[in-house]
Amino acid sequence: MSALAASLGDPAGVGPELLCEAWARRETEHLPPFFVVGGAQALAEAAKSRGLDVPIARISSPGEAEAAFRAALPVLGGLDGGWTPGKPDPQGAGLALASLEEAVRLALAGEAGGVVTAPVSKALLAEVGFAFPGQTEFLAHACGLEQDEAVMMLAGPRLRTVPITIHVPLSAVAGLLTAELIASRCRIVAQGLRRDFGLAGPRLALAALNPHAGEKGNFGHEERDVIAPALEALRAEGIDASGPHPADALFTERARAGYDVAICMYHDQALIPLKALDFDHGVNMTLGLPIVRTSPDHGTAFDIAGTGKAEPGAMIAAIRMAGEAAASRAGR
Amino acid sequence: MSALAASLGDPAGVGPELLCEAWARRETEHLPPFFVVGGAQALAEAAKSRGLDVPIARISSPGEAEAAFRAALPVLGGLDGGWTPGKPDPQGAGLALASLEEAVRLALAGEAGGVVTAPVSKALLAEVGFAFPGQTEFLAHACGLEQDEAVMMLAGPRLRTVPITIHVPLSAVAGLLTAELIASRCRIVAQGLRRDFGLAGPRLALAALNPHAGEKGNFGHEERDVIAPALEALRAEGIDASGPHPADALFTERARAGYDVAICMYHDQALIPLKALDFDHGVNMTLGLPIVRTSPDHGTAFDIAGTGKAEPGAMIAAIRMAGEAAASRAGR
Repeated sequence: MSALAASLGDPAGVGPELLCEAWARRETEHLPPFFVVGGAQALAEAAKSRGLDVPIARISSPGEAEAAFRAALPVLGGLDGGWTPGKPDPQGAGLALASLEEAVRLALAGEAGGVVTAPVSKALLAEVGFAFPGQTEFLAHACGLEQDEAVMMLAGPRLRTVPITIHVPLSAVAGLLTAELIASRCRIVAQGLRRDFGLAGPRLALAALNPHAGEKGNFGHEERDVIAPALEALRAEGIDASGPHPADALFTERARAGYDVAICMYHDQALIPLKALDFDHGVNMTLGLPIVRTSPDHGTAFDIAGTGKAEPGAMIAAIRMAGEAAASRAGR
Repeated sequence: MSALAASLGDPAGVGPELLCEAWARRETEHLPPFFVVGGAQALAEAAKSRGLDVPIARISSPGEAEAAFRAALPVLGGLDGGWTPGKPDPQGAGLALASLEEAVRLALAGEAGGVVTAPVSKALLAEVGFAFPGQTEFLAHACGLEQDEAVMMLAGPRLRTVPITIHVPLSAVAGLLTAELIASRCRIVAQGLRRDFGLAGPRLALAALNPHAGEKGNFGHEERDVIAPALEALRAEGIDASGPHPADALFTERARAGYDVAICMYHDQALIPLKALDFDHGVNMTLGLPIVRTSPDHGTAFDIAGTGKAEPGAMIAAIRMAGEAAASRAGR
């Protein structure tokens, strides 16, 4: 397996320091080899701010990363810029974008085992010409896919969730749900769990939209009209899909033992339980891509960058998950 | 403080056995004295099914309960019927209803310190003439209040939540929310936390309706149009109310340390985090009543009644919370 490519993220955010922290804990956390695409200066300064001893090994090709990783944090190429924690600017956003683009290019070319993306500021990226609502949509485009072929999964140690609708008003959710939308997302999820997690028969649990799953139509009909037909289609294809489950009962410890991923109808239905249970360890993984891609499920946290307060758990989990997915794809 | 009155619940459900289990653990769990209204035969048989040694003390007035409680489970009055775990019938529902009505009457008369209600089947109660959607609505009526003067709060060891809308389709939620509805519920909640929990300045955290709290109006305007005006009104009255908070960030351990109760806009927003975190210990408490009323936050569980599998944690928590609230009201 080739080393993973990590993008730097916004150099004014917590990305550089968390990559350094992850490298420093590479042995105790059993992390796979990774290299950062650009940002050597920012990384060195970020390490110092946390009191970490992180030697930087400048490498000129990804193939050098694995050998260098044991003794130093490998950094590829000449992309660089200053470290400005808490002070985002367009120059830093440009560096973040160049790092992201190059990391994805290397993974698509087979030179990196997968991509771990550090947090970026979408607003700032837009100022430097980034035409996508987020990194997930950029990844779909960069991989030559339609945007709806890439599916966001949130994964923590105790729960994996996939939201069917995401950044829309709550009042719009019911109108956006169709059986075909749900079924097509679930197919991508099932295939992703087989390919990246080695689950032969992944178990999908579909949440209901309405309280008590609508209680036989007393509070809504989407369970019967939209979710049930999706379940029928999925089962006909041999996918292990259950539901619609009353959402409040789906995230208890006992219920979680019964499935591999919860398919949720809206953003907060997926994110509330994930963050309540696994806040410091949530990973955002993009399913459906030809490459492995993970990310810590938090933002740039400009307000605490450089203070040493940022928790590295999610970054460490994202690197570990990318390594496991890459190994699963490689048949190891 | 007078002993608490516990209603029997449906004798085909788990209520009787959980009341016995709670009595059996009264010392280790530091439970306040309580008595059950009726159902001596059902209780004795339920205790036997769990292998519990629970002597029954038949009492003829609530005043006898406290002295009897140490050595036996006090049971008031002649209401009785057989124990039929898993086999609900109208006769049992009639017994459950009579027990509930009498428990509330005793609390209103000051003869009981408060009411703990065991689970009933709403569908079966309707068959025997019960004209309310649930016990909370019955309680409001029995106390001479309008239904919107009684507010349901769900409480676990790690979280308290209040849903503003409850049993309605998700697509109807946005249309039902008004600043006045939210503010009036919050006033009842703030008063309830002062009176029943002894919190001098209870901290209310209001959840947003839309993902990311609408992200400045990008995904919905209810935060600006409905929740913000409610917050303004509450603060003008001196109530410590914060928000609107993005709902997915509101239930992490760190966030929970910052408030005493989360005010949620819909059923699953309140119930998903509560059950994910505190499934076996959730208590349903009715705020706004002249009497103390709690209930375990689970149903009759007809399918496991009599098998010994029912977890008593929520019933025990409901009895303890009622005792604490009654003591708080009594100024102790």
